[in-house]
Amino acid sequence: MSATISPLAPKSYPELPEVKGVRMATAAAGLKYEGRTDVLLAVFDEPAQIVGVFTKSKCTSAPVDWCKQNLSKGVARAIMVNSGNANAFTGKKGLASVQLSADILSKATGFAADELYLASTGVIGEPLPAEKFADVADSLVTDAIADKWMDAAKAIMTTDTYPKLSTRSVKLGEATVTLNGIAKGAGMIAPDMATMLGFLFTDAPIKAPALQSLLSECVGGSFNSITVDSDTSTSDTVLLAATGSASDEWIEDAADPRLVEFREALSSMMLELAQMIVRDGEGATKFVEVKVEGAESDASAKRIAMAIANSPLMKTAFAGEDANWGRVVMAVGKAGEPADRDRLAIWFGDIRVAVDGERDPDYSEDEASAVMKEDEIVLKVDLGIGNGSATVWTCDLTKEYVAINGDYRS
Amino acid sequence: MSATISPLAPKSYPELPEVKGVRMATAAAGLKYEGRTDVLLAVFDEPAQIVGVFTKSKCTSAPVDWCKQNLSKGVARAIMVNSGNANAFTGKKGLASVQLSADILSKATGFAADELYLASTGVIGEPLPAEKFADVADSLVTDAIADKWMDAAKAIMTTDTYPKLSTRSVKLGEATVTLNGIAKGAGMIAPDMATMLGFLFTDAPIKAPALQSLLSECVGGSFNSITVDSDTSTSDTVLLAATGSASDEWIEDAADPRLVEFREALSSMMLELAQMIVRDGEGATKFVEVKVEGAESDASAKRIAMAIANSPLMKTAFAGEDANWGRVVMAVGKAGEPADRDRLAIWFGDIRVAVDGERDPDYSEDEASAVMKEDEIVLKVDLGIGNGSATVWTCDLTKEYVAINGDYRS
Repeated sequence: MSATISPLAPKSYPELPEVKGVRMATAAAGLKYEGRTDVLLAVFDEPAQIVGVFTKSKCTSAPVDWCKQNLSKGVARAIMVNSGNANAFTGKKGLASVQLSADILSKATGFAADELYLASTGVIGEPLPAEKFADVADSLVTDAIADKWMDAAKAIMTTDTYPKLSTRSVKLGEATVTLNGIAKGAGMIAPDMATMLGFLFTDAPIKAPALQSLLSECVGGSFNSITVDSDTSTSDTVLLAATGSASDEWIEDAADPRLVEFREALSSMMLELAQMIVRDGEGATKFVEVKVEGAESDASAKRIAMAIANSPLMKTAFAGEDANWGRVVMAVGKAGEPADRDRLAIWFGDIRVAVDGERDPDYSEDEASAVMKEDEIVLKVDLGIGNGSATVWTCDLTKEYVAINGDYRS
Repeated sequence: MSATISPLAPKSYPELPEVKGVRMATAAAGLKYEGRTDVLLAVFDEPAQIVGVFTKSKCTSAPVDWCKQNLSKGVARAIMVNSGNANAFTGKKGLASVQLSADILSKATGFAADELYLASTGVIGEPLPAEKFADVADSLVTDAIADKWMDAAKAIMTTDTYPKLSTRSVKLGEATVTLNGIAKGAGMIAPDMATMLGFLFTDAPIKAPALQSLLSECVGGSFNSITVDSDTSTSDTVLLAATGSASDEWIEDAADPRLVEFREALSSMMLELAQMIVRDGEGATKFVEVKVEGAESDASAKRIAMAIANSPLMKTAFAGEDANWGRVVMAVGKAGEPADRDRLAIWFGDIRVAVDGERDPDYSEDEASAVMKEDEIVLKVDLGIGNGSATVWTCDLTKEYVAINGDYRS
C-alpha cells in the first residue's frame, strides 16, 4: 500500500450488498509485513459453481496451477487469497506450500481440498511460509460474515493505492440477482509480480459451464483490454463464483435468453474493475482510452490499439501532455498489422490532428494541447481500410513509475 | 544534440581512413535549427554498388520508399542525408519533397535521380522544406573531400549525445580493403521519430546481389538485435555502398571464400555501431547484454531475449541496480515461447541467482547487487529445453528517459 492515493482514484466507493451464501473474513498472518491484513477467506454456505480465467504466462505461479487443476470439478467451498508473497517461481517448495495451505484450510473448514481455491500476490521467488495460515485459519472460518467487502478488497492490495470494488443488481428470469466484484492490481503487473487478481461473486443460479462461457466472453473486453506496462504477470487470476441462492431455477446454457441482463452486468462490472486497475497504474497521472476503428478485423484493431497503449514513447507523450501524433503513426506502423499510411486519421479527444496520412489542414496545436491537459484522454485512430474496431485502456508513463519500480524490492 | 554526453559513451573515437572513391561534405541548410549542420552528402567518383535494409514499419517514411524503389537498380552516385526533419507521415507532400530533393541533387551533381539515395531523420509530420537544399547543393558537391568522417557522423545526429563511427581493414583476395561506417540513433527510435540510420562504405569490389546477402545476414545480429524502448521507427535505414576501387576483381557471389574476413569485419563493425546506439540510449546509465541459451530454437531464444530487453520492469530494475530475477521469470513467461518454469536458470554476470525454477540455494544478494552496480551488465538465461541461443543488447529505463520524451517536442 502506498501513502499517496492515485490522482485518478474514484471519488467514492460503492456499498456492496450481501451476496447470499458468501461470507468473508480477513486476518494478518504476517506473511511479509507484521500487523498488515494479508489474508482473505471467502466461504460458501453451500457448494458454489466456480469458473476462472488465468494468465497466459508460460511460467505460472503454483496457486494458478492449483486453481486450474481444481476447476475441472467446478465446485468451490472456499477461496483463500494472500498478499505479500506470490508463491511464484518457488519450484517444488511452491507446490508444497500450496498443498500445505489447502490442508490447513481443509482442516479448518472441513471441506475437501479439491473444492478450495487459492491465490497469492506479492513478492516472487520467496518461499511462501504457508504454516503461518495455521495461526489464522480457525478464526477466519469463525469470523466470516456477509458484510465484509471493503475489508476484503483491502486485504488483497499490494502496491495498490486504493481498494477496488464494484456491484450490479439485475433481473434474471423472475429473480433479482446480485453481482459483486473486488480486484487488485496497479498495472497488468505491479512491481515484483504483485499481480492482477479479481474475485467475482453472484447469487445467480448458473452452472459452471455456462458461467465459464460468460466469464471468458467478458474478459476479452475488460481485464484483457488493459495495460499499464505491457508486462504480463505469472499470477493473473480472475475467479467467478455463483452460489445460486437467488433462485432454484439453475441455468445450464450460456445462450439462455434469461442471461441477457446478467451478461451485460457482468461485462460492465468487469470493465469497471479493469479500469480501476489502470487508474491505479503505477505513477499514473492520465487515464487513456485508445480506440482503433477501420481496421481489417477486430483482432487486428486490438493488436494496433495495444501497440499504441504499450508504446513508451506514446506513454511519455501523455505524461508530457504533448499531442504527439507522430508517435501514434510510429505505433501503428510497428504493430505489423495491415495499415495504409495515407488513409490514417487520428484524433485526440474531438480534435482531428491528422487525416489522409498527413497533418490535418485545420490542425490547431492549442486545441490539441488543451485535450492533453485533461486527466482522461481519448485517442482515436481510424485506419480507413475495414470495419474492425477495438478499445483498450492504459495510463501514462511517468518518472514516478521508474521510481516505484527502480526501488521496490531493495 | 544534447549538452550532456551519455555516461556510456566511448572514451575515444577512431580515426577513419579514406575509402577510395567516396567523398563527403556537410552543410547547414536550416531545416529545423539555424546554424546547425544538418545535411550530409556522400558522392561516389564512379558508380558504386549499393544495397540496404529498412524498417519493417507499415508506415514507412517517404525517403525509405524512395530508397527501396531505387535499390532495384543497385547503383549509387550519391547519398544525401538530413537531420531535423524525418519527412515521415507527410502524405503527398512527402513524396513531392523527396522528388524535389532528388531533382536539386541531380542538377548539382549531373547524376540521374534513380542513382541518388536520400535519408531523413528528425521531427515527423512536418513537411520537409526541400527547397532549402538548393541553397547548399552546389557547394556540397564542390566541397566534398575524402577525409570528412567525423563531420559526417555529427551532421546526422539528432538527440544523439555523441557521433558514432567505426572502421575495419581486412584482406579480400590479394587486396586490402577498408570498411567505414557511421550511424545515428539514441534508441531504436528516439523522440519524434529521430531514427536509427547507418551508412557503410567500402572500397571492396563486391556486386550488389552479394553485398545485399552480406548486409541482410549481418543485420540480424547487430542493428536488429538492439532495443532502447521497443518502439520501431518509420525511417530506420542502413545503406552499404561498395566503390570497388580497391581491386578490379569483382566478387559476384556471397558464398565466395574470399569474403570470409570481409563478412566478419562487416558483422563486427555493424555490431559495434549498433552497440554505440544502445550506449547512447535516451537516459541510459547501464549497457545490458541479454543472452538466452537452451531455447527450442535461435528464433525462440531471440523472442525471449527481446521480451526481457523490452520489459519496462526489467529496465527499471537495471536502473535501480536491483538484481530482480523475478522479473526475468515474468519476461520469459510473457514471451509466449516454449519454456519450462522448473528448468530455468538465471545469471547476473557470473552469479547464478536461480536454478531449477527457484532461487539458487547459494544465492547471495550482496554478490548479485555488486554486479548490478556495474555500468555494463550481462544477464544470462538458460531455458534448459534445447540448443537455441541469441544475444541482444539494451539499456536501462530511467527518469531521464521519461523527461527527454515527455518534453521533446514542446
